[in-house]
Amino acid sequence: MARGKKFIFVPGPTNVPERILRAMAVEQEDPRRPDAPAFNLPLLAGLKNIFRTKTGTSFIFPSSGTGGWEAALVNCLDTGDHVLACRFGQFSLLWCKMAEDHQLQTTILDEEWGAPANPDRIYAALNEDRSHSIKAVFVVHNETTTGVTSDIAAVRRAMDAAQHPALLFVDGVSSIGSIDFRMDEWGVDLAITGSQKGFMLPAGLSFVGVSEKAMAIVRGRAEGQKNSRHAPHSYFDFNAMLARNVEGYFPYTFPTPLLYGLREALAMIEEEGLDNVIARHQFLASGVRAAVAAWGLKLCAQSHACESNTISAVMVPDGIDGTKIAHRAYNRYNCSLGLGLNRLAGKLFRIGHLGELNEMMVMVALSASEMAMLDCGVKITPGSGLAAAINHFRTKA
Amino acid sequence: MARGKKFIFVPGPTNVPERILRAMAVEQEDPRRPDAPAFNLPLLAGLKNIFRTKTGTSFIFPSSGTGGWEAALVNCLDTGDHVLACRFGQFSLLWCKMAEDHQLQTTILDEEWGAPANPDRIYAALNEDRSHSIKAVFVVHNETTTGVTSDIAAVRRAMDAAQHPALLFVDGVSSIGSIDFRMDEWGVDLAITGSQKGFMLPAGLSFVGVSEKAMAIVRGRAEGQKNSRHAPHSYFDFNAMLARNVEGYFPYTFPTPLLYGLREALAMIEEEGLDNVIARHQFLASGVRAAVAAWGLKLCAQSHACESNTISAVMVPDGIDGTKIAHRAYNRYNCSLGLGLNRLAGKLFRIGHLGELNEMMVMVALSASEMAMLDCGVKITPGSGLAAAINHFRTKA
Amino acid sequence: MARGKKFIFVPGPTNVPERILRAMAVEQEDPRRPDAPAFNLPLLAGLKNIFRTKTGTSFIFPSSGTGGWEAALVNCLDTGDHVLACRFGQFSLLWCKMAEDHQLQTTILDEEWGAPANPDRIYAALNEDRSHSIKAVFVVHNETTTGVTSDIAAVRRAMDAAQHPALLFVDGVSSIGSIDFRMDEWGVDLAITGSQKGFMLPAGLSFVGVSEKAMAIVRGRAEGQKNSRHAPHSYFDFNAMLARNVEGYFPYTFPTPLLYGLREALAMIEEEGLDNVIARHQFLASGVRAAVAAWGLKLCAQSHACESNTISAVMVPDGIDGTKIAHRAYNRYNCSLGLGLNRLAGKLFRIGHLGELNEMMVMVALSASEMAMLDCGVKITPGSGLAAAINHFRTKA
Amino acid sequence: MARGKKFIFVPGPTNVPERILRAMAVEQEDPRRPDAPAFNLPLLAGLKNIFRTKTGTSFIFPSSGTGGWEAALVNCLDTGDHVLACRFGQFSLLWCKMAEDHQLQTTILDEEWGAPANPDRIYAALNEDRSHSIKAVFVVHNETTTGVTSDIAAVRRAMDAAQHPALLFVDGVSSIGSIDFRMDEWGVDLAITGSQKGFMLPAGLSFVGVSEKAMAIVRGRAEGQKNSRHAPHSYFDFNAMLARNVEGYFPYTFPTPLLYGLREALAMIEEEGLDNVIARHQFLASGVRAAVAAWGLKLCAQSHACESNTISAVMVPDGIDGTKIAHRAYNRYNCSLGLGLNRLAGKLFRIGHLGELNEMMVMVALSASEMAMLDCGVKITPGSGLAAAINHFRTKA
Repeated sequence: MARGKKFIFVPGPTNVPERILRAMAVEQEDPRRPDAPAFNLPLLAGLKNIFRTKTGTSFIFPSSGTGGWEAALVNCLDTGDHVLACRFGQFSLLWCKMAEDHQLQTTILDEEWGAPANPDRIYAALNEDRSHSIKAVFVVHNETTTGVTSDIAAVRRAMDAAQHPALLFVDGVSSIGSIDFRMDEWGVDLAITGSQKGFMLPAGLSFVGVSEKAMAIVRGRAEGQKNSRHAPHSYFDFNAMLARNVEGYFPYTFPTPLLYGLREALAMIEEEGLDNVIARHQFLASGVRAAVAAWGLKLCAQSHACESNTISAVMVPDGIDGTKIAHRAYNRYNCSLGLGLNRLAGKLFRIGHLGELNEMMVMVALSASEMAMLDCGVKITPGSGLAAAINHFRTKA
Repeated sequence: MARGKKFIFVPGPTNVPERILRAMAVEQEDPRRPDAPAFNLPLLAGLKNIFRTKTGTSFIFPSSGTGGWEAALVNCLDTGDHVLACRFGQFSLLWCKMAEDHQLQTTILDEEWGAPANPDRIYAALNEDRSHSIKAVFVVHNETTTGVTSDIAAVRRAMDAAQHPALLFVDGVSSIGSIDFRMDEWGVDLAITGSQKGFMLPAGLSFVGVSEKAMAIVRGRAEGQKNSRHAPHSYFDFNAMLARNVEGYFPYTFPTPLLYGLREALAMIEEEGLDNVIARHQFLASGVRAAVAAWGLKLCAQSHACESNTISAVMVPDGIDGTKIAHRAYNRYNCSLGLGLNRLAGKLFRIGHLGELNEMMVMVALSASEMAMLDCGVKITPGSGLAAAINHFRTKA
Repeated sequence: MARGKKFIFVPGPTNVPERILRAMAVEQEDPRRPDAPAFNLPLLAGLKNIFRTKTGTSFIFPSSGTGGWEAALVNCLDTGDHVLACRFGQFSLLWCKMAEDHQLQTTILDEEWGAPANPDRIYAALNEDRSHSIKAVFVVHNETTTGVTSDIAAVRRAMDAAQHPALLFVDGVSSIGSIDFRMDEWGVDLAITGSQKGFMLPAGLSFVGVSEKAMAIVRGRAEGQKNSRHAPHSYFDFNAMLARNVEGYFPYTFPTPLLYGLREALAMIEEEGLDNVIARHQFLASGVRAAVAAWGLKLCAQSHACESNTISAVMVPDGIDGTKIAHRAYNRYNCSLGLGLNRLAGKLFRIGHLGELNEMMVMVALSASEMAMLDCGVKITPGSGLAAAINHFRTKA
Repeated sequence: MARGKKFIFVPGPTNVPERILRAMAVEQEDPRRPDAPAFNLPLLAGLKNIFRTKTGTSFIFPSSGTGGWEAALVNCLDTGDHVLACRFGQFSLLWCKMAEDHQLQTTILDEEWGAPANPDRIYAALNEDRSHSIKAVFVVHNETTTGVTSDIAAVRRAMDAAQHPALLFVDGVSSIGSIDFRMDEWGVDLAITGSQKGFMLPAGLSFVGVSEKAMAIVRGRAEGQKNSRHAPHSYFDFNAMLARNVEGYFPYTFPTPLLYGLREALAMIEEEGLDNVIARHQFLASGVRAAVAAWGLKLCAQSHACESNTISAVMVPDGIDGTKIAHRAYNRYNCSLGLGLNRLAGKLFRIGHLGELNEMMVMVALSASEMAMLDCGVKITPGSGLAAAINHFRTKA
């Protein structure tokens, strides 16, 4: 319909709250102003709370989450370094590809698309690596392509069981701030996320959390321990960033509106309580899953244990094109749903349910999904998913 | 839920489109600036298109719709004048009360709350008034309390059949710009509406359309034909307003943001086409009515012919408090529904469906209604209304 | 210049702070929602602080300041009542005219345009009125036409000296919130102001403060003590408004954005401190006056004692058209200045300096004034006014 | 002063027009939506107009201008490549440093800070390089540190005279869109700029223009002509970006608000006309220089020919700390001025005059500068600079 609100349920960007839109409507400020540190430093501190790290260091880069990945590679690894990476969806695949482009030596643990990272295989690979040639293990916490959440605590236990010193790198782009994530407790060495998911902001900022163990390596480079295998880089350099951050500044000009938006987002998460935010995502995701079950459809996620609380990838029956469903929802029902990507193209559509979200917004996503599926020939009972969702949502007082 | 978008489905104010919110975010301008007429005059002209009058005059007042009513009374009627008024809901009731407060002599045609104005009774009353003591007939086009639309064309035919010269005053607050309204064709002499309904703006402006016949009376007063029965007034004076309007100015300071918002609203309606806007309201309202029927509930409107396309008043079963349903929807499901007013308090709740609206927004209203009704003990089948609505909405390609 | 910020220095509307613009960018809310009182009541309380009344009652109307005047007339006075009004500018003139239009009997004390109200003449007129036929005294606190502030405390002393029971009505549209005003201490019975001046909001709300003495009269009417001389009115009725206000609601739909803006404006005034706000206006106005003196020009205000701290009316030399200066500033220098009105048309231009204002904004007003005057042939030394202003502004550490 | 508008005259970020602020207040959109290309492609085309290239390719990256530099290095040069770079200020210095960090072999032509690039020395260096080992020449078009504009056309003539095939890389961060820049005509192979200067946007986007000659090198890499000296990189990769751009998409998630802001900025520049934008900067800059001359102070720029039209660096007398002047302007007069950087710290302060700007905004910058200088003990005649500026500004009808 030509008129009326458009809704967005791709896994990202997500809905920006009115309150954050207001916070971002600011005029520009001099990044070198004397009182900038009083504004900037609490942002860096607030990020640490979301990463749940006390001993780590947080970074902000004006970039997409992809920039966060690159920062991870260039600051802590050298050309030719060996990494172990789990691959089970488009985003873990792209991360592996980036590692290869950066001339890292990659050992890839492929899982079916729909399965999570397999801690047993990680254990086996590390256990076999007696020379400790593997410098880092890459795991995507929440694979946005498939709606699958990996068990990072179990990955850590596997690494510990193998007594392997590799760093643990986690892509938390679509989990951090929405799904339980514990950087310190799980021994994550490098975690990356972006502004346009659980942080409820537009894209444009990436956030990186770095453990003390990883920072020791980073600092070593600043102290002249460079070698010829260090990939040249500047924009995403932790040391250059940290040198200005400690004084409350940034080394180049940052987008003022996004910083104001970040301040508001951190305040909103703190007001609600991070645990409550996580519980809300769990509750709303369960409503989506109730609808999917009522439709008689399956999620891409292969087990309940790995179902994501921020994104549900709904498998469509044979003979149906999931991409057409998403396009129908967009063109006819003012609602953006996610497409199937890569090998899953056409086989599913995805409902993002993260960030600024409540039951009514989920009902929009489910209504558009039902209507678009019916329009595209999926044999479901009209209203079945909606009824299941409202029954679920009513369970909370 | 503490987080997430709040939805508003009271019959007014209505949802303000993002595009209008942006248009209103302006700094102030000097109301006496030389180029103000180039801005103001198209607003007055655009309003005439919405009123569907070519020969009438349009006015804007910085006030709520209630101010529009008062403008109608003080500019065209004298203290002690006799008016014939139809009363069948809270807003027609308040208009009658205002007439009495203004010391007009009122003959009131009461209808059941749920029925529309009765043209036959209007004919009879006018026919009986051989001395033509009745100066004006008051009809509320769309009674927001009951979700009932009166047939203004039929009222005009009744007046013509009685060959009575009374003026026809119409409250179109919740109809104009949403439901078919034709000032010239129906011989409406004075029509009032407000910014916060079909115009998709915040409250704060009332719009009045005045026919040439009524303006002749107004002009007479400016030309010294005052008499002691003229109610003293200033703020809502048509002559004082017109004297500045013809030059493209206003006699006192207007709210700049609302004028910019009005410009955008007029542009949006013109882009969509007023006929399409009206058809959209019809289509969306039918979806709501399909849901109500599927719930097994009745509307307050006593016949299909008078069902409103901007507001549905849903009768709740005996023993259920409609007010609790609305409060539940607000407190638990982030959704404002309308309450029953006056004698209908508790007996119904109301769903506003006008202005900036599409199918997905209606699904929110229906979801919240279903859930809140279930929570409050109404025996309906979960999902039944939602299924009926999506089936209806899917009928349009 | 086609590009760049436009500046506004008419006496109103004034510059709306970015912070208030943000606060107003809100979606609509149901005016009948259960938690509306928690939002509305602090607004009414906050207004009392600005009026500096503890015992009075504050009202908000969705109207311009002109509506506030009408509210004053219709609620506390009857048709044919006798009022004493001081007239010394366009706005006091319009108020007198409104009183006459409302069929009040007016005794007018004309002063030269440039002089303030004369307490001695008020004393004399009241002293002569042995029968106490005069029901109210009307004084404009700050006459925006001439940049003249009257001494309301002295008016009160005159009334007390005459031992006259008349009510004291004060137009504080361009003073309250900017110039010292003390409703209780000065015994003001009815004070009116608007949103678009010291409150830094767009036009669209009028604010009225009513003393306990005046409210007793108002309440009397509600209790059936109506008489045939009461002017019929509804929109601006204090009793109807109060009946809803005491419960935290309004009797008709208010503009949500302006209410949110008002909340922010009250917070900003409280943060700065009302005394500091008043001192800031005094300091900035002194800078404007220093510039005028350096130009060798005179203010319209006839003595230093009555010079306004919110508006300076600058007399232009014979043979120069002040209107052309203001138009030049607008058309060439992106700066709105005020025109001379009525008998002062062409003889002066006006610089508004109230609301959201600091030294740099004043420098813009003075720069545009100097340049436009030079362009229009006024013989002043380029830079002279600017130099005087910066010298003044530098006196504050 | 605690209240009132803050003004920003650092060389960047610059003032964001109200119109662009409104354009950016948008909800998020799915970057994979079917109609995204219709939105994105005109942005890339519009950028080419600003670069004044018909044959080149334009890129947008979500990064600061620093990211644009890095993009230049990693896409067209290999580790160990030889570049010739002019250094005469903090930003050319940082670019040289980045080149060294990227393990390029740099030959640096140092000029005094205050002088522009020297085409004769470039000619000499290239002429000497018979083996054509120099792959690229780096010139900062407008050195923001010193307010100096280099003559890029002359640099091109020097390169042509030396018949040297090196690429010409130009940093146009504070010139493009404000100062005459002609990519095709001057044979610029790689030009970079950012969103927060002449584009009037917040920081957050960098724009890169690449000539056909440079793109041939870039394309070669995509076609497998990689070698071991290619620096690994992903985020700023032209080929990955172009592969999606040609279809109207981006390879990762972009900040929706900045894209909407860019669309508005391009529309504003087109409406004014790029030549008129450039002439406006020239006119306003001349006003600033008239003030500096009247103060009896000198610019950092060593000759009139190289004075920048976007930034004036004002040398302060011996014994005066320029940093204190800028801090005074910020802390006391609500006005951000630029600091002296690196070896110029304390020796000057800088007035940025670019982007959204008119005469009145310049008067604010000059007023704050005068007052802050006087406060800090600079012996200038109060009002002298302001008088000179208004005399200059009045020369335009």
